[in-house]
This record gives sequence, structure tokens and C-alpha cells, in this order.
Amino acid sequence: LDYQHVQVPFEITLWIMLASLAKIGFHLYNKLPSVVPESCLLIFVGLIMGGIIYSLNDKSPPVMDSDIFFLYLLPPIVLDAGYFMPSRPFFENIGTILLYAVVGTIWNVFGIGFSLYGICQVKAFHLQDVSLLHNLLFGSLIAAVDPVAVLAVFEEIHVNEKLHILVFGESLLNDAVTVVLYKLFRSFCEMPTIKTVDIFAGVGKFFVVGLGGVLVGLIFGMTAAFTTRFTKDIRVIEPLFVFLYSYLSYLTAEMFHLSGIVAIIACAMGMKRYVEANISLKSHTTVKYFMKMWSSVSDTLIFIFLGVSTIGENHEWNWPYICFTVIFCLIWRALGVLVLTFFVNRFHVNTITSKDQFIIAYGGLRGAICFSLVFLLPDFHRKKLFIAATTVVILFTVFIQGMTIRPLVDLLAVKRKRESAPTVGEQIHIRFLDHLLAGIEDISGHWGQYYWKDKLEYFNSKYLQKILLREYDQPKSSIVLLYEKLERKHAIELAEAGQLGHALSHPSLLYSVFLCSNNDRTVIMDKKLEDTLNPDVLENIQEILARNLYRIRRTGPAYNRHTLPGEMEPVEHAKGILILRHKSL
Amino acid sequence: LDYQHVQVPFEITLWIMLASLAKIGFHLYNKLPSVVPESCLLIFVGLIMGGIIYSLNDKSPPVMDSDIFFLYLLPPIVLDAGYFMPSRPFFENIGTILLYAVVGTIWNVFGIGFSLYGICQVKAFHLQDVSLLHNLLFGSLIAAVDPVAVLAVFEEIHVNEKLHILVFGESLLNDAVTVVLYKLFRSFCEMPTIKTVDIFAGVGKFFVVGLGGVLVGLIFGMTAAFTTRFTKDIRVIEPLFVFLYSYLSYLTAEMFHLSGIVAIIACAMGMKRYVEANISLKSHTTVKYFMKMWSSVSDTLIFIFLGVSTIGENHEWNWPYICFTVIFCLIWRALGVLVLTFFVNRFHVNTITSKDQFIIAYGGLRGAICFSLVFLLPDFHRKKLFIAATTVVILFTVFIQGMTIRPLVDLLAVKRKRESAPTVGEQIHIRFLDHLLAGIEDISGHWGQYYWKDKLEYFNSKYLQKILLREYDQPKSSIVLLYEKLERKHAIELAEAGQLGHALSHPSLLYSVFLCSNNDRTVIMDKKLEDTLNPDVLENIQEILARNLYRIRRTGPAYNRHTLPGEMEPVEHAKGILILRHKSL
Repeated sequence: LDYQHVQVPFEITLWIMLASLAKIGFHLYNKLPSVVPESCLLIFVGLIMGGIIYSLNDKSPPVMDSDIFFLYLLPPIVLDAGYFMPSRPFFENIGTILLYAVVGTIWNVFGIGFSLYGICQVKAFHLQDVSLLHNLLFGSLIAAVDPVAVLAVFEEIHVNEKLHILVFGESLLNDAVTVVLYKLFRSFCEMPTIKTVDIFAGVGKFFVVGLGGVLVGLIFGMTAAFTTRFTKDIRVIEPLFVFLYSYLSYLTAEMFHLSGIVAIIACAMGMKRYVEANISLKSHTTVKYFMKMWSSVSDTLIFIFLGVSTIGENHEWNWPYICFTVIFCLIWRALGVLVLTFFVNRFHVNTITSKDQFIIAYGGLRGAICFSLVFLLPDFHRKKLFIAATTVVILFTVFIQGMTIRPLVDLLAVKRKRESAPTVGEQIHIRFLDHLLAGIEDISGHWGQYYWKDKLEYFNSKYLQKILLREYDQPKSSIVLLYEKLERKHAIELAEAGQLGHALSHPSLLYSVFLCSNNDRTVIMDKKLEDTLNPDVLENIQEILARNLYRIRRTGPAYNRHTLPGEMEPVEHAKGILILRHKSL
Repeated sequence: LDYQHVQVPFEITLWIMLASLAKIGFHLYNKLPSVVPESCLLIFVGLIMGGIIYSLNDKSPPVMDSDIFFLYLLPPIVLDAGYFMPSRPFFENIGTILLYAVVGTIWNVFGIGFSLYGICQVKAFHLQDVSLLHNLLFGSLIAAVDPVAVLAVFEEIHVNEKLHILVFGESLLNDAVTVVLYKLFRSFCEMPTIKTVDIFAGVGKFFVVGLGGVLVGLIFGMTAAFTTRFTKDIRVIEPLFVFLYSYLSYLTAEMFHLSGIVAIIACAMGMKRYVEANISLKSHTTVKYFMKMWSSVSDTLIFIFLGVSTIGENHEWNWPYICFTVIFCLIWRALGVLVLTFFVNRFHVNTITSKDQFIIAYGGLRGAICFSLVFLLPDFHRKKLFIAATTVVILFTVFIQGMTIRPLVDLLAVKRKRESAPTVGEQIHIRFLDHLLAGIEDISGHWGQYYWKDKLEYFNSKYLQKILLREYDQPKSSIVLLYEKLERKHAIELAEAGQLGHALSHPSLLYSVFLCSNNDRTVIMDKKLEDTLNPDVLENIQEILARNLYRIRRTGPAYNRHTLPGEMEPVEHAKGILILRHKSL
């Protein structure tokens, strides 16, 4: 028996196996996962495993290594989150999300830190030796909402899209703030004196860490998209690039002390549309499924390890400190959400209801990130107290809040996610409104989100797509592509049914969506013609439509915001109209 | 900058990235991969990389770690090979493959070992200090054909299926022999005296290592199949089990000093049909694509590392020894193939032609396994000579033989792989012949391959499927499933074309494949009825067919080899016939 030789991969495989089998086990009894969130069950399995290891070895089971967590377990989950991020609600609420993530987190850090310092001054608790700086350091790691925990719970309760993106977006983007504050306070702890300059440098770092992460992510994302242009002959390694480049973006960001989470999200969101257009359908299925599988395994492992690491002798159970930590975490988050939402609602028409506010405050779950950060703390005599407090806060939020949030959502009748996908009609209306709003913002000189979205789309179709897409044709809107797909499918069906002969002109009329694409804008008129038109009438209609289509396309440039009216080939335009008139005469 | 922190994953990702980009690079110029095999190009890239590292650092670049190779790079390739192994040709030629793999490899080991020992006796070469045992040890590592190299070259030249499986099967199954001989000679090198008992124990080990590997593989394969019975509610982690269990089988086999390669192949081949039936279609696509991707990356990395490791100061260039090694490798393999094929052809009707023999001998490429084994040798003063000789043999076989084998196949007009898949008619005939031969073998009392195949199928449908499959229905042959699929597809098409009304009875007649399944046997009559039959005629035909179908099904048990004639409900059988007769009167 040569166990030493295969130990590392064998044990890793066994842990993954345990995690997967635990997952299967829960789902064998359908009732269990509908009452208790999976994350709780997994932590419970971890606790049992930890207990077994502890009783067998008579020493504390191995704790989750922070390096393993940050380098191997976290990236797949964040990649999955970024890749499948619903980009429309995310960008629509980006202001609110950033407010919660930046101001809200800072509010929580200082709120919790200062109040705990207050508690430490009570002589009866024997905590006078915990300095303000240590309390703030602890506040910086306990304040941040954890994306893994949030995802695990919110995926199961199906609240409405906006609420989901607010909590989830905050949990992702607060990483930059957490990283900066945590490192700032940690370095302050080691400094003999703190100068005012250091504090200002810390504030400046927010922008460097956050925006630097976005930049690194976008660079890798664009490179990934560019690389997939050339994989036509070796489809088999296409999915690889999605994983490699996003992982590299994470590692590079971490290397430069930027926010890795922000980088990987920017990378995934940036490359998605181009990569999807370049790679084959089966590669795309592989990417999607493998990403889901991988993040699911990571997630499972994290919760099991969280349970395992809880068992042991790493804790100092000073109950007043621990209880007040839990209470302050709840209070400051609730206050923060109330105050920030008050300001948000003043500037928005579509306000956040008080029910939604409650769920946002209540959904602030803590998880493995806090846990890893607390173990990364430099050794000092009260580290075990912080570990104990963090463990209790995590278990409290995941178990108590995680298990009660679903009944509360039911009880409050919080608006749920709509089940059906938007219809084509709705999609067209949404696009039309975007258009209109972009035009209004342009005319009024307001640099709003629609203005920027429009600019970005223009930049995308004019430059990015040409560089990043393999088959760059005309910029086609998704509706045109859908129409083409439907027509092709219908033609194949007719051919297979052996009746293509007499229905050749059918498909193009049956779904006669007349498209008049005008650079990046699409005006669509949906007409359903009767099946019973005779061929002469049909021909006549087609002729009229062709002429109108021509006219619309020609008059298009008049309302294009990226060219002056009359800038685009006015001579040809006039000529075209003349020819048309001549013909009609 | 904190490079230390992310170094390990960062460098691994960069190496994989380099490998993938190199692959893309070759395929940008279509001419290159059609002349030079990809493996040669990758080694070349590796040589350049190694040269760069060598010139920058002024020391030898890191060699491929044997542990990394055997634990992480080799398993994905072997898993892919086992999972996509064409099982029919493999089992049809299993005798020949085993003969080549076991006897052929032993022949080569001793042939090369003894002849090199002869060369060492020539005083002019200054090699008298290399003992017979060391030569045999070297022979044991250099004799084995490498599956990775064979796969890389043979996948590109498309020789006929039998030839492919002979070379490829040999390269996979010789692992057991190589492992045993290599470890035997290595332990002999360290022993003061060798007893006869040790030699006999070594011979006995062949069976233990090989059959033990098969056993371990089958146990894990069956467990994997059993596990996928319960994944219905969490489709997302289904693909994981295929990878986890096969990797565990490899590691477990290695742990017990059994053949890991044999284990993983047995595991993959054993679980495939059950897992495929249990998991969803998209999970299966993910498994297939991810396996291909992973093995492709592993393969690429191996060849690049092979190139990188070649550069450096690990070599002792004693050219006579090296040249004679290459020559003996070629000669002994050619002789071995000739002698063994002579015996094989005496016992087979479908003989191996002399052209095929030449390709088998010429296709004996050496690769990364030899390379890793030579680095695993215990330190002794001539290790660098062995490393140099191994490197040259690998480069010679991969470059010279790998690049000339395609022109040679063209020149000799070796029978190629048929392009098209076998038709349904052919499949039915093959199955019918299998049936017939199983019956003949049974009657004549001969325990041939058809007899065993039939027994295995019976065991499978009677016990294994009931335990391992989630939806165990009737044992359905693949043709029945194909028919059902076609019928369903056709019905959907008709419904979509809006003409289901008048053609309802159409689909079941259009492909009227009349199936009469009789436990594990299927007699199929394929009839294409004219489209222009009137309804009365149709009804009449259907009635006649229904009656005939009944009769065939009833008389079935008479030729079922697993029940005695008349054992299965003879009363009901007779009653059925009576009723039918009564009706026809």
C-alpha cells in the first residue's frame, strides 16, 4: 500500500465525492431541501465530519485554508455569478448597488467597529484590552455580505429580479471595499503611529482597487473574445479559454492587490456576448454546464469545510462580545439599508418598497469570506475571540436568517420573480423605449444611463465587434437573428414534410416581420398576413413593402444621433427617391 | 506586487494557456498540421520554450515531474481513451491485443535488454560498467509503446478500425507488463542476490497487477453507474461522477501497486452504457466535450513538457549506446510483430495482412511514459546515459516515424477507416450473425467470444440493468430506441406542419419496422409500404401483420437458450394459437 504517493489528489477527490454524495442525499427526500436551505444542511454535514475527525484524532480538524479558499474555491462561484449575471437589471440598478456596496459597507464597518469598542469599555466583560483599531479590523471583515451565502439562499426563494440583483450585486461589489478596509486596518495595526496622509491614501485606494479590478477584467475579457475568433478548427479547446482567461484575470488582480472578484465579474460580463457568438453551440453548452457544475461543487465544499472548521479548539467564548456582535450586525445593516434607501428613493421613480428593504436588510448573510479573512489575521492574543464571534455570526445568519427568510418572503407577499420569459412583443417595446429615452437624454443634454448605453452599443458595433467577432457581418439585432432562425426551422420542417413545392414563398410571409435596421436601431412592424391571399395580391404587397422598406432605410440617417443629418451620402439618397418616383409613374 | 501568493495557480494556468495558444497557432495555417503531426509541433514549441528558459536562467529548465505526469496529466487521456473506446473491435481482437501487449512487450524488454548488454561488452564503447540488470531495467522502460504518442499520430492518419485498435489497445494494456517488469528489475537492482522464487513471484504479479486493475476499475465503474441512478433532481453535478469515480479507480489502483491505466479503462468501459442511460442529454454532452477538452489539454501539455525537459544538462551523450538503442527498438519490435502475427494468423480466418503488420511495427511510438519512468530511476552513475538514450528514442519515434507514417500509409495503400456509419440494415445483419454464432458455439460446446458475449448480455439484462438503471423498463435494443426516436420526431414534424389529421396512421407505417423482441434477441423485418395504399388495404395489412407478429412472439421461447423449450407458459402459447385460428376461420 502506497498511500503517501497518491494522498493529495486522493483526498481532494474524496472530499469532492463526499460533497456531491451529500447533495444527492438531500435531494432523495424532497421535503428536506424545501424547508432547510442546502447551505445549512451542508454545514451540518461538515459539523458531523468535523466531530468525527476531532474524536478520532483527538485534535482540532484542519481548518479551511484561506489560500485554498481564495485561490481555488471562490473563483468558480464568482465566475458563474458574473457569467450568468442578468446584465440589464444589473446596469439599471448599478447606482443603487454601488451605494449599498461602498457607502453601506463603510457604514457597517465603522458602525460595528465603534459600537463593539463601546462594549469593550464595559468593565464587567473583561474586554478592555481590545483596542479600537482591532475592533475596526474585526468590523471590516464581519461587515461584508457574502456572495456565496447570498447566492445559496436567494437562488431558492425566487424573489423579484430587482431585489435579487440589489442584494447579490452588493455582495459581489463590496469585495473591493472589504479588501481595502481590511488591509488598511491590518497595516494600521502594525504601524506605530497613523498619519492623516495614510487615511487619505486609504480612501484613494478604493478607486484604485475597484476600477483597477474592472480594468484588468475587461482586458482579459476582450483578449478571451479575441482568442475565440481563431478556434474554428479546434472546437474542442474552446470552452477552455473562457475558464483560463477569467481565472487569469482573477489571479492577476489578486497579484496587484486589486479586487479579484470585481475583475472576474468584469471579465465574464465583458467576454460573454462575443465568446457566445464565436464558439460552437456544443462548446457553449459545455461552458454553461461545466461552469454550473464547478460552482456548485465549490459552493458545496465551502459550506462543508465551514462546518468542519467550526469544530475544534480555536475559539474563545466571550459571550457578551459574541452576542453584541450579532446584534450590531443586524442593527447597523437595517439602519444602513433604511437610510441609503431613503436617498435612493428620492431620486428614483421606481422606488424600493419597505418590504423589499426588509428583505435586503435581512438577506445580509455572512459566509466563508469572513471566515477566511479572520483566519488570515496576524496572530494576537484575542484572535480566538474574533474567530468565535465570526463563527457564531456566520452560523446565525446562515441558519436562523437563511431558514426563516423563505417563510418571511411568503408572509410579507414580497413580489416574486415572473415565471415566463418576456414575449417578443415586450422585448420590442422595451427596446423601443430604450431608444426613445436615449434620444430624450441626448436632446436634453442629460448624461443618463440610456445615453451611455447607446454610446456603448455604438462603440461596440462600430469597433469592438469588428475586432472580436469571427463572422462580422452586418450588426444584427437579436430579433433579426430570432426571425432568421424561425424561418430556417420552418423551411426545414416543410421540406421534411415533403410540401416545400407549393409553399415556397410561405415562410417569409408567415412571420412577416419587416425589419428596417438603421445602424444600431431597429424599427419593427409585425404583420400577420392571411394565409388565403392569392399570388397577385401577394406580389403587389411585396412590391409596396420593398419600396417602403427602401424609403425607411434611406430616411434613416435623419435621426441617427451619431451622424449629422444629411452627412451620409445625401446624393445617393436623393437619387434613390428619384428612381422610385420614376418607377411608380 | 505579490507574485508569491498566486504563483502556483498562475503558472499552471499560463502553461495551459501557452499549450492552447500553440494549438490554435498550428491550425491557423492549414498546411502545417497536414504535413507534421501536432505532437511534433508541440515538442518543437517545448524545445523553444526550454531553450528560452535555459538561456535566461543559465540552468536546466525544470523537467516534467513524474508525479505530475502520472497523477494529473495521464489519467484524463486514458479516461478519454477508455470512454470512447470502440468496444466491439476491442473485444473482437482482445486475444491478439493481449498477445501483443503481454508477450510482445516481454519479448521487446528482454530482446532490447540482452542486445544492449552485448553492446556494452564492446570495449571501444567504454560501457562495461553497465550491468545486465541495468540494461534489462532500461529495456523495460524503453520497450513499452506509449498510448499518448500512438493516439496523437493514429488519430490523424485514419487507418482501418482493426489496425487502429491493435496498436492502440496494445499501447494501453502493456502498462500492466511495463509496471511489473520495471518494478521487478528495479527491486532486483537493489537486492544483493536474486533467488528463483523472486522471478516466479514476478511472473505471478502480471496477473495480479492486470486483473487487479480490471477488478478495481469495474467496482468503481459499477458504483458510478449506481450513483447516477439518484441524480435526477440535481442534474448539474451528474458529469462530475464520471470524472470522480474514474479518477478514484486510477488512484486506488496506483495505491495498491496495480495498473492504474487498466483500472481507469475498465472503469470507463464498464460504466459508460449505464451512465449514458441515466444522465440527461446535456450532461452527456458536457461529459463528452469536457473529456475531449481535458485530454486534449493534457496531451498538449505532455508534449510541450517533453520538449522543455529535453533541453538541459541531464544527458550523457554516449552515441554508440544511443544509436544501438534506437536500432534495437526498431528491430525487436519488427521481429516481435512478425513472429506473433504468424501465430495469430494461424488461428484466425480474418488475418492481419503484411501491410498491416508493417504499420503495427512502425507505429510503435515511444513517449512520455518512458520519459517519466527514466526520471523515476534510482540515482546511479549511468542514469544520464539512460535519460539521453530515452530522449533520443522518443524524439526519433515521434518525429521520424510520426512524420513518415502518413506518407507510408498512403504509399502502401493500407486499408482506411470507412467514412460512413454502418446502415441500419448492416447493423441488423451484424446482430443476427452474432446471434447465430452464439447459438452455434452453444450447440458445439465451444466457449468462444460469442458465447461469452451472449452470457454477459443475459447477465446484464437480468441483473445489472435492474440495479444500475434508473428507468428500468423492458430491455430495449438500440434499434428499437432508434425507431421510437424517429417516429416521435416525425410525429412532431407533422404536427408542426399542421397536417397531423389526415396522416395519423402514417408514421407508424412509414418506417414500419416490425419488432419482435424475445428477451435479449431481436428479429427485425424492415418493410417500406407504399404511400399510396388505400385505407382498406392498410387495415387489412395491419391485421395480418398483427397476427404474424403475435405468432413470432409466441414461438420465440423455442429458441431461447436460457430457458428450456416449452418451459415458458406453453399452455398460454397453445391457447393463443387456438384463438388466432378461431378468429381467422
